[in-house]
Amino acid sequence: METIKTGLLGFGTVGQSTFAVLQRNQGEISRRAGRGIEIKRIAVRDNNKARAVLGETDAVLLDTDAEALVCDPTLDIVIETIGGTTIARELVLRALANRKHVVTANKALLAVHGAEIFAMAHKHGVMVAFEAAVAGGIPIIKILREGLSANRIQWIVGIINGTTNFILSEMREHGIDFETALERAQRLGYAEADPTMDIQGIDAAHKIALMSALAFGAPVQFDSAYIEGIKGLAPLDIQYAEELGYRIKLLGITRRVADRIELRVHPTLIPTQHLLANVEGAMNAVVVQGDTVGSTLYYGKGAGGEPTASAVVADLIDVTRLHTADQSQRVPPLAFQPDQLSNLAILPISEVRCCYYLRLRVMDVKGVLANITKILADNDVSIDALLQKKSRLPDPVGANETDDLIVITHLAVEKQINAALEQMSALMTVMPQITKLRIETLNEGC
Amino acid sequence: METIKTGLLGFGTVGQSTFAVLQRNQGEISRRAGRGIEIKRIAVRDNNKARAVLGETDAVLLDTDAEALVCDPTLDIVIETIGGTTIARELVLRALANRKHVVTANKALLAVHGAEIFAMAHKHGVMVAFEAAVAGGIPIIKILREGLSANRIQWIVGIINGTTNFILSEMREHGIDFETALERAQRLGYAEADPTMDIQGIDAAHKIALMSALAFGAPVQFDSAYIEGIKGLAPLDIQYAEELGYRIKLLGITRRVADRIELRVHPTLIPTQHLLANVEGAMNAVVVQGDTVGSTLYYGKGAGGEPTASAVVADLIDVTRLHTADQSQRVPPLAFQPDQLSNLAILPISEVRCCYYLRLRVMDVKGVLANITKILADNDVSIDALLQKKSRLPDPVGANETDDLIVITHLAVEKQINAALEQMSALMTVMPQITKLRIETLNEGC
Repeated sequence: METIKTGLLGFGTVGQSTFAVLQRNQGEISRRAGRGIEIKRIAVRDNNKARAVLGETDAVLLDTDAEALVCDPTLDIVIETIGGTTIARELVLRALANRKHVVTANKALLAVHGAEIFAMAHKHGVMVAFEAAVAGGIPIIKILREGLSANRIQWIVGIINGTTNFILSEMREHGIDFETALERAQRLGYAEADPTMDIQGIDAAHKIALMSALAFGAPVQFDSAYIEGIKGLAPLDIQYAEELGYRIKLLGITRRVADRIELRVHPTLIPTQHLLANVEGAMNAVVVQGDTVGSTLYYGKGAGGEPTASAVVADLIDVTRLHTADQSQRVPPLAFQPDQLSNLAILPISEVRCCYYLRLRVMDVKGVLANITKILADNDVSIDALLQKKSRLPDPVGANETDDLIVITHLAVEKQINAALEQMSALMTVMPQITKLRIETLNEGC
Repeated sequence: METIKTGLLGFGTVGQSTFAVLQRNQGEISRRAGRGIEIKRIAVRDNNKARAVLGETDAVLLDTDAEALVCDPTLDIVIETIGGTTIARELVLRALANRKHVVTANKALLAVHGAEIFAMAHKHGVMVAFEAAVAGGIPIIKILREGLSANRIQWIVGIINGTTNFILSEMREHGIDFETALERAQRLGYAEADPTMDIQGIDAAHKIALMSALAFGAPVQFDSAYIEGIKGLAPLDIQYAEELGYRIKLLGITRRVADRIELRVHPTLIPTQHLLANVEGAMNAVVVQGDTVGSTLYYGKGAGGEPTASAVVADLIDVTRLHTADQSQRVPPLAFQPDQLSNLAILPISEVRCCYYLRLRVMDVKGVLANITKILADNDVSIDALLQKKSRLPDPVGANETDDLIVITHLAVEKQINAALEQMSALMTVMPQITKLRIETLNEGC
């Protein structure tokens, strides 16, 4: 059979690795796919730089004309690896309009413009494949879309940003603060020069928004996600969490609750003995809870050229197999048939039910604990565990002896917790700031 | 679109769960598959028992005529859940010859008669899907066949038998012996009345043989697998392993080495800090090492009605999508195109390179260690770690003081180890039996 001909937009880390993998493993790939897959054309910004990497070859047309590539009638598939949501969006839409299938690693693009892109693909009868957009080489998109298709999926919880997981591992293992750990991550290449998207949780939110849509058969709702990064996290809370049997991870969380969906990214306490708590460094892992399969976990490298290329090339093989098939034979991009998406709305964070970790700094005076527990009870928040210790923080000028008071709550609605925190803050015996972190026990409870 | 009509052979745990899941999740399933999937006919051995479970219904024809079911012209797919390799084989072959797709959870059938069954399916242009045959609800077949299709797979290591993993967890946690742990497993329903297939490693060998074929594009070679169960495992070795930083698991292992494949099942020491070592109780987990993706891990329930039904129904959805597609659009059953299978042979266990754990019981006399280390050196086996302790076993009548000597070796070929063990056994100062266990560090080394 004739080879499948593809064009590559961008020749950075992921583009180069994709090219390398298609060459290196071409024997195995064509033995699997039943035909070869070739990159025939590459469009880049800087011709000379790309040429230096690619070397002299007649087999690949290299130039800066991305517009021409997405219209090239000899190409079956366009691989988008340029990133961002502006030029990438235009080129992907143009490629789809030209009836080319698109394989992309661009989570931001699909999280923000997914509806438009999937509609365009559907209109022109072509596929958009995006395994590489979430959790790198872990085939989590395929798992959600096909592997667990028998299930009513209940929740997904994932460590889906390697940069922040590396930083949190460093903070815990070496007892260092956020800034020091970030610098180390940057020095070792685990964090970019501008780490904003990672440390603020935006990258993780892009990914959990995509998984949420796949799991629950709803449109991508990144705009409604609650997002909280790890910048404000204190080493002290990591220590206290450990003492109480928890580890702090930045998690992407999505859960079905009645007729709504929770969609949130924030630092979270999880039980130390759970496998997920033991995912360290830049690794990724996703836990999926289905009504039939129960709890399953998927673990691997979430970033880097080769792991991402593993996902891109798997998509290329899938598209190669199905590109002449009719729609009913293809797996719909969001797992559910396009005319069968529900309109489950996102539950506002104030309505989310969760267990909480609260750390207060209180004066060591009589009645302070009674006041605090009364406020919690008044707001319908019940206490699961309580830890009071001499404060490890330096005493502020003129202050009395102070204690750290750690409260672990049972399930409570976030707005109740917030109301309680407001009332506690007004107490003379409670010093600013109160720390609030959410807990996931990763079972039926919270 | 018209619903897909299936027939179910057998109505035990897996059959009943499959029926239940198709009913319970029919809304989500048809939103995913684009059409409904129904069980229209069930063939069982005992009509009355099945009727009691099924209840009165006109929607399903229930009888004992399996022959008629596999020939029924109104059915698109036959689901085989009767198990075994005799009647199941005949019925599956008959169904395929009648151009019905087959979905099966029967690992033994495919491990032993895979070649015949896949050839029959190919001849008649139908599919055989068997996600449920390996690791229950974990979609490991799809992951190997599609999710990691970009990779040259290097090795697979898995905890793929829940019964033995439960027994090993119990032995370690409670310091009990094999027989006691087995009784407990039987009482709790984790082991069958006749646990032979599980504890001898045969069930795990069926599964690793299937994964090996999928990973390396070779025929299923269960017959050549090396199989060693957990019956002979002493609690003492579990303790010593822990002291040395290892946990003992019954692993299925397959690895590509030059132009051969390792295929083996045996109790194995793995580093305690690896996620795989922390898979406890009846859970399953599979680690796959690919050249592109690196190391990935997949974890979940490996048995039970609902997890197995999760896999069966996922297969039904896949087959539903592709049943009118032509061969080139389908994923080949063994991941590689049928005419592209290699004939990589299995490496005999005597040729396998591994690290080893050896436990000897030696007289506490001068020169004993010198003799043993010389024998190892003479056989080209180098020592990684050594532990000598007063023996914890009761002294045999009339013996001197004895020590336990634990040797951890670097990589060595098994026949060299065996030669060394034979020479050691001949020493007057070494008491029978010497224990030999294999070690996997789950990285590039051993």
